[in-house]
Amino acid sequence: MTTHKGRVVSDLSVSAYGYSAGTGQSEQRPFGDDAGDGWGNRLHSWMFETPELRQAELDRLASVGAFVMGRNMFGPVRGPWDRRWKGWWGDDPPYHAPVFVLTHHARDPQPMEGGTTFHFVTDGIGSALRQAREAAGDRDVSIHGGATTVDQYLAAGLIDVLRLHIVPFTLGAGTRLFDGVPPLDLEQVESRAADSVTHVTYRVLR
Amino acid sequence: MTTHKGRVVSDLSVSAYGYSAGTGQSEQRPFGDDAGDGWGNRLHSWMFETPELRQAELDRLASVGAFVMGRNMFGPVRGPWDRRWKGWWGDDPPYHAPVFVLTHHARDPQPMEGGTTFHFVTDGIGSALRQAREAAGDRDVSIHGGATTVDQYLAAGLIDVLRLHIVPFTLGAGTRLFDGVPPLDLEQVESRAADSVTHVTYRVLR
Ligand SMILES: NC(=O)c1ccc[n+]([C@@H]2O[C@H](COP(=O)([O-])OP(=O)(O)OC[C@H]3O[C@@H](n4cnc5c(N)ncnc54)[C@H](OP(=O)(O)O)[C@@H]3O)[C@@H](O)[C@H]2O)c1
Ligand SMILES: NC(=O)c1ccc[n+]([C@@H]2O[C@H](COP(=O)([O-])OP(=O)(O)OC[C@H]3O[C@@H](n4cnc5c(N)ncnc54)[C@H](OP(=O)(O)O)[C@@H]3O)[C@@H](O)[C@H]2O)c1
Repeated sequence: MTTHKGRVVSDLSVSAYGYSAGTGQSEQRPFGDDAGDGWGNRLHSWMFETPELRQAELDRLASVGAFVMGRNMFGPVRGPWDRRWKGWWGDDPPYHAPVFVLTHHARDPQPMEGGTTFHFVTDGIGSALRQAREAAGDRDVSIHGGATTVDQYLAAGLIDVLRLHIVPFTLGAGTRLFDGVPPLDLEQVESRAADSVTHVTYRVLR
Repeated sequence: MTTHKGRVVSDLSVSAYGYSAGTGQSEQRPFGDDAGDGWGNRLHSWMFETPELRQAELDRLASVGAFVMGRNMFGPVRGPWDRRWKGWWGDDPPYHAPVFVLTHHARDPQPMEGGTTFHFVTDGIGSALRQAREAAGDRDVSIHGGATTVDQYLAAGLIDVLRLHIVPFTLGAGTRLFDGVPPLDLEQVESRAADSVTHVTYRVLR
């Protein structure tokens, strides 16, 4: 039984079209290989174009009561946890809420400053979402990435709102949103253009 | 030597994101298999939402002096031309200009009513574009689809302007834009939302 009343949302920056990360992720390159020109930064730089956009982004994060993310979004460690990796975001991550990290490798919860705790969930997407709903109460749950994680929730029909930020470049390879996800019916509820990005909000229809 | 002064443009409807056609094209289903609910029509129905949009679309077609398309966009015939297929569009196709159809199977030109002639080009994308530029003069050349054809021109750096119409649904499989195309730098020059579609115009940077 869940007491969650908020929505389940997901918010991804994608290249035109569909890629959300490259290949060859490493500690130095959280978004994967970039042939030297930092396209991970480019994917997200729209966020910092103006103080207003930056503030909107922080406000959105603040409206989320719990996060779910994949292990690769959390960090570059693969296989057993042979290092005490605490995420890309320093001691005080911008989440300020519980973050449920999907992984096949169990690990104790990792509390951080500012209210963020990373919980490691090894029993699947349903369990992670249940725990996130529990923690979020009336606030939204964000399925925060990467594409592998978002695709599993989309395929299971568990995402209510999908926001895409379409950034003007293409990638030759990488992790692609919607790969292997059965056809989805969407309703375009908002589409807004900024200087260098188009933000589209879709409601996922059942 | 070409006397063409217009731009080379391409204009595609894509699902959110990137698919421009399904699999299993046939005479009954020009956009491929659709699991029964006509998503080919859905891809393009935005065009007919309002008289204004329909007119804008016809005006854009009229501003094009020559078209290049792939053989699958022209029709469902594969291999040798064992049928006298004249396109999906009836006796008076909406092009009113020469259309250069890329194919490996030679065929005599096919004149139609209203100024459209289908020319069949077997010596590659460079030749088709050269002939189209020749014919277009000061007007634009449109690389009209499908994705296989557009991708070849994108990869060769031969498209100046790419317009995408992002339609709110996803496909599980099909022909995807940008597949195998090396990374491209784009400039978002326009992004406009209609009720059920987002139109984004990119300039392709060299
Ligand atoms: N563009 C954006 O907006 C955006 C947003 C977020 C992230 N990213 C980028 O996307 C990349 C990561 O995305 P990704 O798609 O590669 O991976 P991901 O979804 O972050 O993580 C995938 C990993 O999580 C674990 N996992 C996922 N589902 C699971 C399940 N049901 N049960 C157990 N474990 C599960 C598995 O790790 P183990 O088997 O190793 O435990 C799996 O390999 C990073 O480069 C990140 O920076 C981009
Ligand atoms: N969403 C949209 O806006 C949009 C726009 C246009 C089309 N479409 C749809 O897209 C689908 C067709 O797209 P597609 O990507 O499958 O195919 P396509 O690009 O229309 O045609 C590919 C075929 O054209 C010939 N061809 C292409 N390049 C060639 C070259 N360099 N030299 C010689 N022949 C060449 C080959 O045919 P042969 O070897 O058999 O001769 C090839 O199999 C159709 O379902 C169509 O309705 C959608």
